[in-house]
Amino acid sequence: MVYQLYYWPTIQGRGEFVRLALEEAGAGYVDVARGEDGMKALMAELDTADHPSFAPPFLKAGALTIGQVANILLYLGEHLHLAPRGEAARLWTHQLQLTIADLVAEAHDTHHPVSGDSYYEDQKPEAKKRAAEFVKTRIPKFMDYFARALGDKDYLNGAHLSYADLSLFQVIAGLRYAFPKAMARSEKQHAPLTALYDRVAQRPKIAAYLASERRLPFSEEGIFRHYPELDH
Amino acid sequence: MVYQLYYWPTIQGRGEFVRLALEEAGAGYVDVARGEDGMKALMAELDTADHPSFAPPFLKAGALTIGQVANILLYLGEHLHLAPRGEAARLWTHQLQLTIADLVAEAHDTHHPVSGDSYYEDQKPEAKKRAAEFVKTRIPKFMDYFARALGDKDYLNGAHLSYADLSLFQVIAGLRYAFPKAMARSEKQHAPLTALYDRVAQRPKIAAYLASERRLPFSEEGIFRHYPELDH
Repeated sequence: MVYQLYYWPTIQGRGEFVRLALEEAGAGYVDVARGEDGMKALMAELDTADHPSFAPPFLKAGALTIGQVANILLYLGEHLHLAPRGEAARLWTHQLQLTIADLVAEAHDTHHPVSGDSYYEDQKPEAKKRAAEFVKTRIPKFMDYFARALGDKDYLNGAHLSYADLSLFQVIAGLRYAFPKAMARSEKQHAPLTALYDRVAQRPKIAAYLASERRLPFSEEGIFRHYPELDH
Repeated sequence: MVYQLYYWPTIQGRGEFVRLALEEAGAGYVDVARGEDGMKALMAELDTADHPSFAPPFLKAGALTIGQVANILLYLGEHLHLAPRGEAARLWTHQLQLTIADLVAEAHDTHHPVSGDSYYEDQKPEAKKRAAEFVKTRIPKFMDYFARALGDKDYLNGAHLSYADLSLFQVIAGLRYAFPKAMARSEKQHAPLTALYDRVAQRPKIAAYLASERRLPFSEEGIFRHYPELDH
């Protein structure tokens, strides 16, 4: 099975959570929009799919077209052995992923608190207010939560990595990029989360991916943006 | 199996998506926080659960504790026959639910664009801007999407109702309450969505639930709030 990932070709964004899962599993995949005429293919697929997505990313897996990051990971978790099999642990992994998705949406809204359709520059005063709250109360609340979920285990589910660990790695990477001051404070309180980040980064397939051209850089066009005026 | 639902006792909020599923299935359940000492039980469970939730609602189902609305519905969909069995349709139902969750979060942020921890009254200028965008571009985009997903079918998956239909009903109900002007315009364009709403509302168990005291009213403490100044 060669998967086809459809996502914006120039940013990590929400597609990155899927890329990390595919990379860790060593799955064959095509990052469609990064190929020739890729954007055309993405837009055509958005318009015509039987099971259309509200927005990218979506994944084609044989006859299936699957949208929504957490849903794609639910599917890949089962098929690529990136999630536990038992019902309780499977649901718990998905619950963590959905909470990560909430955090990602909030991180996005720090720079787009009014509208995703207009520029950051046109909503800076609102962004400053929202980011101040995000830094002061939301990052600590989410990081406390994930630290509690992790406990003193190697991975969120214990000895074995799941897609939620990959996503937590990505969120920490993104928050470090966007809010370095706030994250330095947070990580001082939560050494086990930093250890999880390192553990994921050092997995051979992830390390190779991060060093490759397939890993796009963070930038001010993605979800995690570094605007120094928003980081306190 | 008697399920225990943990959610804030005075609002529909996100808990309502779970209540509707339990009601439609005729499942036995206790709405824990609405009972005696219920808030104490909710807070204790939040603090001590093995698989803690970032926020209510969460559901106890025998030995399982499950958080995140879409995850709870994934579980109930399977166990209460509120979702199709086949992989493609099961994933599609979940994808729709996750998109509904995104819409719910955006509806919430119209009145809390800066911070969920402070009052609407303290973020009114920002709320006006965000709500204007929500009404102008987001409601139409989401409703177009769900109308496309529904097509001319009775329910999102065809002839059989799933939890996503119940949730779409609830979102339409909430948006009608919060943004009556904007929704009147939107529904004029999308008669099939109104027909779906009516179809769900008339199902015997849902009709009985909506007429009962178990159905809390919409209010300005929930997710869908009617502030006339935000509805255009």
